[in-house]
Amino acid sequence: MDNITSIHQTKALVADWKALMRTFIMPENDVSRTVLVKYMEQILFGLHDFLKKHVGITEEISLKVLSKDFQNTIIRKTPEKKLADIITDLIENIAPHAVNVASPYFIGHMTSAIPFFMVHLKTITAALNQNVVKLETSKVVSVLEKQVLAKIHRLIYNNSDEFYSCHVQNVHTTLGCFLEDGTLANITALWVARNALLGQKDGFTGVEKEGLYAAYKAHKIDRCVVLVSKLGHFSIRKACGVLGIGSQNIIPLELNQNYQIDINMLRKTVKDLTSNHSKTKIMAIVGIAGATETGTLDPLYEIGEICREHNIYYHADAAWGGPTLMSEKYSHLLKGIELADSVTIDGHKQLYMPMTCGMVYFKSPTILDAIQYFANYTNRPGSVDLGIKSIAGSREANSLILHGALKIMGSQGYALLIEHGIETAREFANTIKKRSTFQIVTNPELNILTYRICPDYIQEKLNKTGKKETIRINKILNETNRVVQRTQREAGNSFVSRTKIKVKKFDEEIVVLRSVIMNPMTNMKIINEILDEQEKIYNSLSPVLKKIA
Amino acid sequence: MDNITSIHQTKALVADWKALMRTFIMPENDVSRTVLVKYMEQILFGLHDFLKKHVGITEEISLKVLSKDFQNTIIRKTPEKKLADIITDLIENIAPHAVNVASPYFIGHMTSAIPFFMVHLKTITAALNQNVVKLETSKVVSVLEKQVLAKIHRLIYNNSDEFYSCHVQNVHTTLGCFLEDGTLANITALWVARNALLGQKDGFTGVEKEGLYAAYKAHKIDRCVVLVSKLGHFSIRKACGVLGIGSQNIIPLELNQNYQIDINMLRKTVKDLTSNHSKTKIMAIVGIAGATETGTLDPLYEIGEICREHNIYYHADAAWGGPTLMSEKYSHLLKGIELADSVTIDGHKQLYMPMTCGMVYFKSPTILDAIQYFANYTNRPGSVDLGIKSIAGSREANSLILHGALKIMGSQGYALLIEHGIETAREFANTIKKRSTFQIVTNPELNILTYRICPDYIQEKLNKTGKKETIRINKILNETNRVVQRTQREAGNSFVSRTKIKVKKFDEEIVVLRSVIMNPMTNMKIINEILDEQEKIYNSLSPVLKKIA
Repeated sequence: MDNITSIHQTKALVADWKALMRTFIMPENDVSRTVLVKYMEQILFGLHDFLKKHVGITEEISLKVLSKDFQNTIIRKTPEKKLADIITDLIENIAPHAVNVASPYFIGHMTSAIPFFMVHLKTITAALNQNVVKLETSKVVSVLEKQVLAKIHRLIYNNSDEFYSCHVQNVHTTLGCFLEDGTLANITALWVARNALLGQKDGFTGVEKEGLYAAYKAHKIDRCVVLVSKLGHFSIRKACGVLGIGSQNIIPLELNQNYQIDINMLRKTVKDLTSNHSKTKIMAIVGIAGATETGTLDPLYEIGEICREHNIYYHADAAWGGPTLMSEKYSHLLKGIELADSVTIDGHKQLYMPMTCGMVYFKSPTILDAIQYFANYTNRPGSVDLGIKSIAGSREANSLILHGALKIMGSQGYALLIEHGIETAREFANTIKKRSTFQIVTNPELNILTYRICPDYIQEKLNKTGKKETIRINKILNETNRVVQRTQREAGNSFVSRTKIKVKKFDEEIVVLRSVIMNPMTNMKIINEILDEQEKIYNSLSPVLKKIA
Repeated sequence: MDNITSIHQTKALVADWKALMRTFIMPENDVSRTVLVKYMEQILFGLHDFLKKHVGITEEISLKVLSKDFQNTIIRKTPEKKLADIITDLIENIAPHAVNVASPYFIGHMTSAIPFFMVHLKTITAALNQNVVKLETSKVVSVLEKQVLAKIHRLIYNNSDEFYSCHVQNVHTTLGCFLEDGTLANITALWVARNALLGQKDGFTGVEKEGLYAAYKAHKIDRCVVLVSKLGHFSIRKACGVLGIGSQNIIPLELNQNYQIDINMLRKTVKDLTSNHSKTKIMAIVGIAGATETGTLDPLYEIGEICREHNIYYHADAAWGGPTLMSEKYSHLLKGIELADSVTIDGHKQLYMPMTCGMVYFKSPTILDAIQYFANYTNRPGSVDLGIKSIAGSREANSLILHGALKIMGSQGYALLIEHGIETAREFANTIKKRSTFQIVTNPELNILTYRICPDYIQEKLNKTGKKETIRINKILNETNRVVQRTQREAGNSFVSRTKIKVKKFDEEIVVLRSVIMNPMTNMKIINEILDEQEKIYNSLSPVLKKIA
């Protein structure tokens, strides 16, 4: 039999095995160590300067040019590069073509600067390499995760001391779970909703075991639907696809003038769908706390009342807005979230954690029983194994990072960040209203706003003209805004995103510029610079695009 | 309006905002920096010594005692601790109660030591904080990810140069995707299988849009099943539950004497299920390359032939065994994997990446179209946005880590690790056969074996005795092995896991000790120490458990 001893005896192999062991355990030599120290020190102790120095905000280089260097698909047999060269290459050649999401000029997406200490916490988490799927590969970290989950649960539901004493370390109950991201959190919530609706009945053992076809027959229905506003995140559609409900069985509800779910329309839809003899069941109503495109919040309390009245599962997608609960000044915006059966919150968004950390919380500590799975070799019944009730198996210990962050920041620290975002966005909106080139489209309820280039004289024209002319003008404006956004992105100094928003007044979707203010270094000076640049690009556009009147 | 300027003007708030900014950007003072440097240096340049010094392998402390310190569920308003104290606390108070999965004495699970450079790569990835859901928050990293995916695809499918030139950077096709872990990879594969089976037909627009109930009706069936050996990972059951197929619609197939799927039984089952007029459809057959409990491999080629013959979707779960393809010596064990429509491989297992990294690969570069989702603000059609075809949304750039690791290790580096595991496991098995206290239960085909304490004289007795007496003896042996495993774990020097395996000879499940050899520092000296300890514990047990004859 070949065995490892023989490897040590053969000269040619000795070298390989030794080299491998060195690679495994420590830098191969002083040169390598010096290179590593040089970069790691910058990353760990001067993160923001490091990013400013090494990473482009965005850049002009086309995908076609960029991808030229990433064509080789062969894994070489022998090592291609030493660690120090790999690190140098990553930092000198790859990073400059990545995106500096930490720049205060990057205000286009829900990704921003993170406190430097988050990288320290992530590094420690990686070094410990615990797998929180089970106690045997995580021990105390599973216990700590349950504590962190209880803290955020308390932030949302604010139950009694007795409730939390009973559940914080209870191996039989679960207050929530960590997931890869908000999409998986929403899928998990709707998975639970599906199983709660289509449970045991007259000998039928439940949808999880028997499947949807048997479930619909046992429950005498032919369709399940999920109600959510037209601004619902596309993960809700994806969830219905994955779960076998069908992505077209989302009913996207009309918005009121504040871009919230129209509560009367919701009432009417629920009433229509819950009439006698209906073969359609409402699986869940989803309320949004911080819509991706507009940052707007649905009337969470009113939705909760409707759900309670009709005994419908209520999910709140607070992936974005959830952490606003830490601001005493603005937490009232989420009033009613405590009525939700489940709540999604993302750690990598407004908890400023590194990519990625999703979470979902449940009002009932036993509702996750409907999705539990056991195995002989792990996840045994009655154990604290966190993988029992989770869509994922192996997971890294993101709870360690959130545990540290909550202690370092305090809720007040997070509140300052969140209040800065909301208040800067409001000032941003005021500025837009004052500047003659721009038009606000959706006001910031939280820290997101949308606007477009649409000079005052065109706005006036749009107020007076007929439908056909409005469509013509909006078409030109759409193209104008597309070009301005792209040109600014490619110039590489700053980044604002764009999307399409349906505006009631026009009864059509228009292209808008979208800003997300979450970087504490983003201030009005920077915002005005970004607007100036947009104005400048607009002014340089050809008359065809520019001149509408 | 409140705005951020006012914060700077009020004295009490200025301090908070300033403190926050400091926390965000750099260590608050030299003391803090010194503490951070002290630990981060150990982690980055002496990882294995650091873990040895700070983390217990396993430990005696009960969950009840451990959880006493993790009861408080209130997020404090003001910061509780400074960063340096948090880091000190994590390392001095939390880490010792975590599990040292990197110890060569920890041979019980699929989690092990990782090369120190993996932590560097993870740190850089966290610092760059790219979100690979879309190009606008990742740019070059999305392009790099496509390249890495193509490299592993090539390792599995080994298609032509032309094939990879065409697809490596093709924005319309996808060779695979990164996911949180193997469970999500298996769910994704079966999601694709479901949608491939229940596609458009006679006006029906497909299961993803219309849901399973409509799909079964359109396709005139009342049940979908998935066939997998009895050793199939429990994520296959979970996948069928999530996807609406029903977890009980897994058909777990009998094993042959080598703990592989019994290919005749598979043929017979397929034949029975595909008879005319059957209202049951086979959604997929899953072949295992490295079963979780035994490390055994199904006859992948033969399964592939059956699938081809009957036009059945073929998924290979190579979460564990996939990287064996890099060993020229042992890649033949996976012969036939290239016939699979999809293949799961985990990065945090035998690619030695930090927690966690799942991947799934597809033979057809367009099959993922069946699960694509678009949105206005991201994931636009025709873009390279990687979130279009993925169960998750936001994702960290694990591809950066694998990119670096493949270059630093070369396939030969990985081959050495994998060959060491297989060959040490074989020697381990030989030793067990020679030692009179132990009995081998499943031989290592890869680097996993199961055995139990069952002294020679009891083995002899079991060979001769009747069924009733066999059951009685096995019951005592089960309890004995449970006690030995638990006692050894709690002593805290080493860790071997346990599970239950159905043994043909006994026609019942017996408790076994399970070892996974993946740590390159685990050698026969250490293994003999672990066996000695087990023997010693066994010898110290009360006669009731020990004396069976």
